[in-house]
Amino acid sequence: MNYYATPIAKLIEEFSKLPGIGQKTAQRLAFHILSLPQERALELARAIKEAKEKVKYCSNCGNLTDVDPCNICTSPQRDKGFICVVENPRDIIAIEKTREYKGLYHVLHGAISPMEGIGPEDIKIKELLQRVQKGDIKEVILATNPNIQGEATAMYISKLLKPLGIKTTRLAHGIPVGGDLEYADEVTLARAFEGRQEI
Amino acid sequence: MNYYATPIAKLIEEFSKLPGIGQKTAQRLAFHILSLPQERALELARAIKEAKEKVKYCSNCGNLTDVDPCNICTSPQRDKGFICVVENPRDIIAIEKTREYKGLYHVLHGAISPMEGIGPEDIKIKELLQRVQKGDIKEVILATNPNIQGEATAMYISKLLKPLGIKTTRLAHGIPVGGDLEYADEVTLARAFEGRQEI
Repeated sequence: MNYYATPIAKLIEEFSKLPGIGQKTAQRLAFHILSLPQERALELARAIKEAKEKVKYCSNCGNLTDVDPCNICTSPQRDKGFICVVENPRDIIAIEKTREYKGLYHVLHGAISPMEGIGPEDIKIKELLQRVQKGDIKEVILATNPNIQGEATAMYISKLLKPLGIKTTRLAHGIPVGGDLEYADEVTLARAFEGRQEI
Repeated sequence: MNYYATPIAKLIEEFSKLPGIGQKTAQRLAFHILSLPQERALELARAIKEAKEKVKYCSNCGNLTDVDPCNICTSPQRDKGFICVVENPRDIIAIEKTREYKGLYHVLHGAISPMEGIGPEDIKIKELLQRVQKGDIKEVILATNPNIQGEATAMYISKLLKPLGIKTTRLAHGIPVGGDLEYADEVTLARAFEGRQEI
């Protein structure tokens, strides 16, 4: 027995393909869409279509953008001597929100992961080297994730950059602000000791 | 500072308008959509558009359907002497999943709620009376929600149906199957006592 009319079943199926959306939530979202006025419901459909049509990767840094090169690459307020290397465009958003960093970015679109068959040539390391060799770069900040893949990727890139004589840094490890010493894992705590600074 | 390209910001905004989807989840969904192949991403947009275009309310029972009258109303396997009255189409799905009920439905599209300014004329009670007077109805089962609005609505409808001499029933209240006596609230427990049956 099919409980739903075909277009409803299809809509539920599409919603349930999204990450973190189960069958129940997909059903709730589908019925919500059906209860909306036509115009409001179609706004979501239109937003999806527009985003897919207009948003591309920046040909310079690999960030998601609707203009190429992206606003960060072309901004006169950004210091073009700094490149912060991240795994994906979401990381850029997280860093931008700190309002601390005023340089450029480079998105690798992944990290080296032999287990998943992702090697250095599968992510945008070649493009990074080209940028570094072309421009007048003062520092490359490796902001890949603090996990095995991210560390391996940072290590790999730093070895490539060393012969070029470019200053290469890695984001500091340590206990999170507002965190609790008691609950910090030992690796993080050990890194916090190593990286201790005079006050 | 705007962190996102305009079409991305718009997509995040549209996702965050959905019920139960906060800013963080909306961002995750938007980036997921952007990472999908064009064709797969547009399937969701298309499913929304199709559902909104094709799905209407059944002119007989008020259920969501893509054919009018709906499949339940026209099915030769359903007993047309029974009408189960529910608040919204989602309730039909819940009841259909029990595979217990083989009659027809009537969707009120709401419940009487003076607090929210919803009176009897704002929900499909008139249409229910018309159906009951027209057809050869043996029983009307009131399956509105077991809360104040649902109870008031059931009470109101039963008073309208009584003069017509139609058997009117209400779903049983009691402790949920698999529930724990200890954790049942007193109202539910009292109703379970009232409704006790010989075994």
